[in-house]
Amino acid sequence: MQVRSGCAFQYNMQVSKKLLNSVPNCVDDALGGLVSCNPNVLILQGHRVVLRRDLEQIRGRVAVLSGGGSGHEPAHAGYVGRGMLTGAIAGAVFTSPPVGSILAAIQAVARAGAAGVLLIVKNYTGDRLNFGLALEQARAQGVDVQMVVVADDCAFAAQKKTGRRGLCGTVLIHKVAGALAEAGRPMEEILRKVTAAAGKIGTLGVSLSPCSVPGSIPTFHLAPDELELGLGIHGEAGTRRIKMLMADEVVKIMVDHMTDLSNASCVTLEPGTSVVLVVNNLGGLSFLELGVVCNSAIQCLEQRGVVIERAMAGPFMTALEMAGVSLTVLQVEEELLHLFDADTAAPAWPTVAKIRVSGQTHWLSARGGQAEDGAKNHDKEDLLRAGGPGSPTMMRILEQVCNTLISLEEDLNELDRAAGDGDCGSTHTRAAQAIQERLQEGPLPASHAKLLSSLASILLERMGGSSGALYSLFLLAAAQPLRTGCGPAVWSAAIDAGNAAIKRYGGAEPGDRTMLDPLCAAANELQALTRPGVDTLKVFTAAVERAEAAAESTKDMEAGAGRASYISSSRLTRPDPGAVAIAAILRSILKVVQTAGW
Amino acid sequence: MQVRSGCAFQYNMQVSKKLLNSVPNCVDDALGGLVSCNPNVLILQGHRVVLRRDLEQIRGRVAVLSGGGSGHEPAHAGYVGRGMLTGAIAGAVFTSPPVGSILAAIQAVARAGAAGVLLIVKNYTGDRLNFGLALEQARAQGVDVQMVVVADDCAFAAQKKTGRRGLCGTVLIHKVAGALAEAGRPMEEILRKVTAAAGKIGTLGVSLSPCSVPGSIPTFHLAPDELELGLGIHGEAGTRRIKMLMADEVVKIMVDHMTDLSNASCVTLEPGTSVVLVVNNLGGLSFLELGVVCNSAIQCLEQRGVVIERAMAGPFMTALEMAGVSLTVLQVEEELLHLFDADTAAPAWPTVAKIRVSGQTHWLSARGGQAEDGAKNHDKEDLLRAGGPGSPTMMRILEQVCNTLISLEEDLNELDRAAGDGDCGSTHTRAAQAIQERLQEGPLPASHAKLLSSLASILLERMGGSSGALYSLFLLAAAQPLRTGCGPAVWSAAIDAGNAAIKRYGGAEPGDRTMLDPLCAAANELQALTRPGVDTLKVFTAAVERAEAAAESTKDMEAGAGRASYISSSRLTRPDPGAVAIAAILRSILKVVQTAGW
Repeated sequence: MQVRSGCAFQYNMQVSKKLLNSVPNCVDDALGGLVSCNPNVLILQGHRVVLRRDLEQIRGRVAVLSGGGSGHEPAHAGYVGRGMLTGAIAGAVFTSPPVGSILAAIQAVARAGAAGVLLIVKNYTGDRLNFGLALEQARAQGVDVQMVVVADDCAFAAQKKTGRRGLCGTVLIHKVAGALAEAGRPMEEILRKVTAAAGKIGTLGVSLSPCSVPGSIPTFHLAPDELELGLGIHGEAGTRRIKMLMADEVVKIMVDHMTDLSNASCVTLEPGTSVVLVVNNLGGLSFLELGVVCNSAIQCLEQRGVVIERAMAGPFMTALEMAGVSLTVLQVEEELLHLFDADTAAPAWPTVAKIRVSGQTHWLSARGGQAEDGAKNHDKEDLLRAGGPGSPTMMRILEQVCNTLISLEEDLNELDRAAGDGDCGSTHTRAAQAIQERLQEGPLPASHAKLLSSLASILLERMGGSSGALYSLFLLAAAQPLRTGCGPAVWSAAIDAGNAAIKRYGGAEPGDRTMLDPLCAAANELQALTRPGVDTLKVFTAAVERAEAAAESTKDMEAGAGRASYISSSRLTRPDPGAVAIAAILRSILKVVQTAGW
Repeated sequence: MQVRSGCAFQYNMQVSKKLLNSVPNCVDDALGGLVSCNPNVLILQGHRVVLRRDLEQIRGRVAVLSGGGSGHEPAHAGYVGRGMLTGAIAGAVFTSPPVGSILAAIQAVARAGAAGVLLIVKNYTGDRLNFGLALEQARAQGVDVQMVVVADDCAFAAQKKTGRRGLCGTVLIHKVAGALAEAGRPMEEILRKVTAAAGKIGTLGVSLSPCSVPGSIPTFHLAPDELELGLGIHGEAGTRRIKMLMADEVVKIMVDHMTDLSNASCVTLEPGTSVVLVVNNLGGLSFLELGVVCNSAIQCLEQRGVVIERAMAGPFMTALEMAGVSLTVLQVEEELLHLFDADTAAPAWPTVAKIRVSGQTHWLSARGGQAEDGAKNHDKEDLLRAGGPGSPTMMRILEQVCNTLISLEEDLNELDRAAGDGDCGSTHTRAAQAIQERLQEGPLPASHAKLLSSLASILLERMGGSSGALYSLFLLAAAQPLRTGCGPAVWSAAIDAGNAAIKRYGGAEPGDRTMLDPLCAAANELQALTRPGVDTLKVFTAAVERAEAAAESTKDMEAGAGRASYISSSRLTRPDPGAVAIAAILRSILKVVQTAGW
């Protein structure tokens, strides 16, 4: 570490910013991280080769090796594990691995007793040559080595001599070959089936951004409204640039291109064809966008009558941080699907449901269909639209509270402008108007619990903001004790329950310059209601006075919660508007009770 | 589709480029993609709620729900599945979900017969309030609902009233709660254990870039040499900005900050503490960098004596396309580790080896240690350093070939400048000099097979480029028939085998303007060697003449492979230098044979 830290990685403003220790060591560091995370694998000393730790399990089975340049993580080392690759050979970023390392990997699995070695190679000249050389050298040493070249790119309409590029479809070939090898199938059968599968894959990529090799500038430039279609996994040129379009349209262009029979590298997707779909994040696309593209791709294929057996979305074969996506389709029949579904310990292979994707319902009715449903929904209805005769005093209390809040609108907004966004009065007026509308609709519920729950629903829906949520929480929680009792002591408990809910969900305490300050001051006085024979009106009057004093005293408090907590306390010289509103509400209630009694 | 395509998503140059259909629909589309991919889940109609399809399995078990704003994919819907979440509720991007949807999810699992509902909530005011409101409403309906708030952020040294933010550690709480619920544990026990686990997590993030909410500009700006430490998953401000450093240094600053006892939100990591480590891609970091950071983090923690039981790296709780990473540590004992290891069907939970990370060897000796090793290594040694007396004619042939190639250096470079990078002569001279050195070292192997293999190794190591690989492949493949026979007919087979290797790995055919043109022309003539009693010298002379004619004729060919295939054929008016070199090599061999015989 000391030595490494010494040769500091000088940050160069002209190259892309990367979180690395050094450009030359980045591949080794990344492989080190992968192997450290996954104790099921080992690095072959002196090589960038990752092998299964349990190599003894390979005895008598065909070993499956793959690899290529780095920068495509989790390919290929993330696919090493029981049921997929026996090992992976990594080159420098976007550079084919050295023949010596490929040969060393072949020798290591041969030493472990493998019944032959299958090399899976992406179709790039460097990989073909280096893997080919290692194969020839190993054969010269008597090892049974075979090679499958994956060339799944559908980008180029005219068939190039070098053939289609090897892209994300390679990962599916790892899976198929690994499952066959794990099942102990002989080399001849594996080679035949894997070669057949490799002929039934098509992939096409699209990108919104380039990528940059560590230590270098980006590989190309795209305008802010352009995307590049058909590009490879090294940022090499695609078939064309198009103007930015909706995801559905981009996917349609991709699928059209992939399935265009005049395209020499097309895949045929007749209606009724069964496929596995891979939606591959090329690196830097957000997973939100990946989900959107996945949705577009499944819809687009299903509209063409293609049967999607399985679909997986994620980063499988990346191009460093490129913000792009590729679509891969593999035509499958029963056996291939079975191999796709087979179990594997490879960490980068996702958990995929073994259920056909196409033809499933995706929706559950929110109303359900079960017996116990009725009672609960009824309860809910009741809660939202509680009817029945409420007390005239309660009507008058609510009318008084609403009138008071509406009259205070500008005062509260003014107070709020110093500490928040200046809408505290408007918010309370909105609430008051909603309650007034409710009062005009008809009588209130007789049950106090139902009344508070009903008010909670109205405020949640109409008041808005955190205030609406907090008032609703207060009322819902306060309703609980009132469900099973009534009388002054229960009201004291109700207010305590309401305050506790505000503390719990709002994260505030008394002293934090919030509505809790008057509420808790009042609640302390209201404790007296639990004593038998107490003068209820006297206690309530004292509580309102304490609440008003507490609201006024918030002017000297530092804000501990809510939006005002971002404001310097020296700028907060007036009372908290939320606290003032609570005090005014309590005073309004007292006024009615003083004249009308409880 | 028609309707959607109609209201086209107008691309706005001022906002960040995204692959979406529309800003308002992006969350629904992404959820649609997720649910389409994973037939194990359903969407609750009318809500952004994802639920297990097999809800009947939840009967009598505690249901675990989580959720929050979108933009953190795969959180939370990707964690829905047996053994993790029963359901997930999504809000708009970076916006808490509506109370109605949370309540609908609670009601749906309650209808399915859940023995209570546990809500796992990230500590943000909006989430606390909305989940709290839904909880209170559901409780009012008689459902046993409990809530755990996860607050794992270690960024802020001074404890804020609102508490630590909820970050990637939430995913571990999903796992622990889900495993307990799957095991049928009662609510009281789950709540107690999950609350305890939530108190033992710490997370810290760092980013190289901002992210941007769909339809908006980026949330903040970072200079090309800056990174932001301690930021949240919505791009909200962190604790400080630092100049770009090496990954090891950045990780050290992060771990120092997380474990600083003067930091009110620190995690205590005494030597000997056992932890689970999560290295979380915040979205747009390349997976190469993620591996590097993972390596740094494991080393850093192990240097402090922390025992890493498990480590996982990947995108678990993202912030759209933010190029950053967060580290999460969870202190574990045996039971927590068991819950972490428990099986789950959630697609976004990775396959993690159930083996302790710390204390494992990460290296396998390339020499192996098994019995059968000896013979094969010996074979390899033999192949590389074959000794024994070679024929004097073979020595003279090689000397002549080397001299010829060296004399042609400038001619070949000149030919190559028109079609490639102008180094064909230099490459061949490098090869010739390497062979000359070998000739001075001592006698050649007597076996022709070993001689060709030995030359293949020299050329692979010293010649470089595709030419070195192709010559090596030719020689290695040609050596195979010579292992078991000799004589003119075997040499004809050897050259055929060599040509086949070049075709196979190089992807070229005769007529593609490559070295294959003279080689195949010669091979056709050499077929005559298989007839008994033929005049060997006469056949070989004819073969060389045909090769020279073929090399010359490449001037009229279009390049079909290699670098020259990128050049317009109208600019290729002279012969291919690789083909000319082959013809010259064959002529040199003939010269020696004409005077010295075979």
